[in-house]
Amino acid sequence: MVSITKLFGSYGANCKLNSFNDEMKFFAKMSILDWCGVAYAGKKEPVSKIVSEMVIEESGVNKATVISNGHKVSSRGAALANGATGHALDYDDTHFLFVGHPTSSALPTALALGEELDTSIEDIILAYMAGVEVSTRIGHILGYSHYNAGFHQTATSGSFGSTIVASKLLGLNEDQTINALGLVSTRASGIKSQFGTMGKPFHAGMAASNGIEAAKLSKLGFVSREDGIECEQGFFQTHGWNKEIPSRAVENLGTEFLFPEIKYKFHACCHGLHSFLEALDDLKKVNNFNPESIEEVKIETNPSWLKVCNIQTPKTGLESKFSYKLTAAMSIYGTDTSKLESYNDDICFEDKMVKMRDKVKVVPNEKLTDMQSVISIHDGSQEIKNTHDLSNKIEKNILETKIVGKSVSLLSQSKSEQISKMLDEPEINKVSSLVNCLAS
Amino acid sequence: MVSITKLFGSYGANCKLNSFNDEMKFFAKMSILDWCGVAYAGKKEPVSKIVSEMVIEESGVNKATVISNGHKVSSRGAALANGATGHALDYDDTHFLFVGHPTSSALPTALALGEELDTSIEDIILAYMAGVEVSTRIGHILGYSHYNAGFHQTATSGSFGSTIVASKLLGLNEDQTINALGLVSTRASGIKSQFGTMGKPFHAGMAASNGIEAAKLSKLGFVSREDGIECEQGFFQTHGWNKEIPSRAVENLGTEFLFPEIKYKFHACCHGLHSFLEALDDLKKVNNFNPESIEEVKIETNPSWLKVCNIQTPKTGLESKFSYKLTAAMSIYGTDTSKLESYNDDICFEDKMVKMRDKVKVVPNEKLTDMQSVISIHDGSQEIKNTHDLSNKIEKNILETKIVGKSVSLLSQSKSEQISKMLDEPEINKVSSLVNCLAS
Repeated sequence: MVSITKLFGSYGANCKLNSFNDEMKFFAKMSILDWCGVAYAGKKEPVSKIVSEMVIEESGVNKATVISNGHKVSSRGAALANGATGHALDYDDTHFLFVGHPTSSALPTALALGEELDTSIEDIILAYMAGVEVSTRIGHILGYSHYNAGFHQTATSGSFGSTIVASKLLGLNEDQTINALGLVSTRASGIKSQFGTMGKPFHAGMAASNGIEAAKLSKLGFVSREDGIECEQGFFQTHGWNKEIPSRAVENLGTEFLFPEIKYKFHACCHGLHSFLEALDDLKKVNNFNPESIEEVKIETNPSWLKVCNIQTPKTGLESKFSYKLTAAMSIYGTDTSKLESYNDDICFEDKMVKMRDKVKVVPNEKLTDMQSVISIHDGSQEIKNTHDLSNKIEKNILETKIVGKSVSLLSQSKSEQISKMLDEPEINKVSSLVNCLAS
Repeated sequence: MVSITKLFGSYGANCKLNSFNDEMKFFAKMSILDWCGVAYAGKKEPVSKIVSEMVIEESGVNKATVISNGHKVSSRGAALANGATGHALDYDDTHFLFVGHPTSSALPTALALGEELDTSIEDIILAYMAGVEVSTRIGHILGYSHYNAGFHQTATSGSFGSTIVASKLLGLNEDQTINALGLVSTRASGIKSQFGTMGKPFHAGMAASNGIEAAKLSKLGFVSREDGIECEQGFFQTHGWNKEIPSRAVENLGTEFLFPEIKYKFHACCHGLHSFLEALDDLKKVNNFNPESIEEVKIETNPSWLKVCNIQTPKTGLESKFSYKLTAAMSIYGTDTSKLESYNDDICFEDKMVKMRDKVKVVPNEKLTDMQSVISIHDGSQEIKNTHDLSNKIEKNILETKIVGKSVSLLSQSKSEQISKMLDEPEINKVSSLVNCLAS
């Protein structure tokens, strides 16, 4: 197939005024004159006034901080940037029912709009919880049918969650909130073929920004549909939904919560590798083995991961994050797989790593879910074996220790402590303090 | 089916802090702390810097005019608002190969970014022509398969066109332009179920704004894919494309132009009514008939329109724009169907209009294309009949007279003449002059 992107991109970049014939120029003039009249007459329409008002209001309000450099912009702008920043390392939380990363869009929306509105941290925690519970449930309804069709819930379902976050912070009533969800149904987008490019982290920013846009417009009187998600040719029907509504997604809303099944990454690599790395970490705790005597390492995993993170001979830091074989070698030799800097170009070519890497066999096992794995290590005299299931609950105190540890390593001891304290007393702390801590 | 939009919208609007249990609050705290660390560590990533830089640059640049009220904002903001304004009346140009309204997004992009960059009108005409030729061809590839699946080319294919417009104005090279198209592949959205709501005109603004965003990010170094449109799980595959590439869409690019097949609306109502209204106008020119003696009016049309604009007893001005029967009565009684104000609530209940309306029979005829119609009027003694095909070329001088007339009626004589003059001498006129004329 001809590359459509290249064909039209090259054409666009290279065409000049004299490439167009007189007929094209005539119709361009006609269309421009025609549009000018229609747009002029359309200035008084409610939709024109509403969208105009939103962009004017936001252009006068530079109160939301871009955390990567401390500048202040509109909340819609800050959410776009901070959403991309938070997902840039792909090291944020994951929900297997949502099928993606619910916090990556909901929290940047909460931080940017909360700062613009000068709210307390308590206000954004409420909005954030409502948002991630909704996006988890909508993501679950969209399910693997949507994901396998090529859509990325982080961007799509994330837009619905961010709309709830923004609606709550702006104090929208029930009808306005429903209407904002109806509107974002036509704005939500994001396709999986962007994985491996900057497009993936950008998805979180898109969703975070979409939510603010939809809620602000709805508050100003924009009228969309009250059934935009599920109506004929609505979001669901047009985006690979399999027409099923899992009962957990809609039942006990408000009394039971799906969000707490959230999972955290404690290894700075693809989530598909985490289950076996956890199994291996536990194995190392109870067995003293000499890496030099290992003859074979076998990793059994759900077949779906083989297309995702089974690079045989990684050559870059980025590729090392998607390699069962190399991360197994790294872990066996005691490299800290939770540290960002452990994944680098050099380690791909380190002698002992390469030798160990080539002793690893990756075996698909359909009986395992995508959160389970089995690892077996043979050293000639014996075989040791362990399994892990990421869906197992971790005890809260153990989890908290791990998260605080990760946070200290990424933020510094003092920043991690400051933020923890603010989250413990959310009613007396402003969102701006939290954002300043991240931006400085 | 349970209304998902209402279910989650109501929940979001009504939940309070004490609706959440301790487990939810614990995981919210964990996720927020986790995200803070990950985002902080992600600040140095290229994608974070690039998206941040775009939103910071735009927040400092209020040079693009929102035409509905003359305020200046960023080009991305102005394109969002002016796109919605230009399509608010649904009276702008239509391309049946594009399947939608190519100018409605391409021109607001050109005006907003051209003004921000302080270019000449000639520069935006070039960028606009490149953009609409590309979006017409991409829209044609997506075709009715995409449209019938529920997507709205004005929003989707419009995003690709606007990306070309913005890329040219920003001076992107070939690789950057291709990359911008790859990026907008994951941003383009817009579903047809928004028709009849403010969401439809908003689609034009979304597309116009998406193009500026993608081109600005690409210029700053954002890396997406060079095959984002056609790759596996790219835009085409995920958006109802039927896997066919019509030869006209890709052949003779740069030497032949598809855009000049553009059609203009000369009646301020649904495009489905235009063919028969033209046939009726021509009939009135050569026949003197007395409305009072008419016994029956028969309109034959392609069956697809019956679901679009066949309201039997319209009750509002908006509904009158979607009624064969009432617009036929209006035209027979000499009401000017090109005037916006002709479509109002009162005319729906006018005695003579209601009587004539009920004499109109609308008959589906599969042999007619969606641009053809047949009208027959019986007055007891005789039947007069006419046909019209919107795809017939109108002679350029006749077309120009009609467009100028429409423009004068919507813009005023003096504004229409000013704009015509600027378009005739585009190299010596700035975009800002044209925009000021529309905003004042």
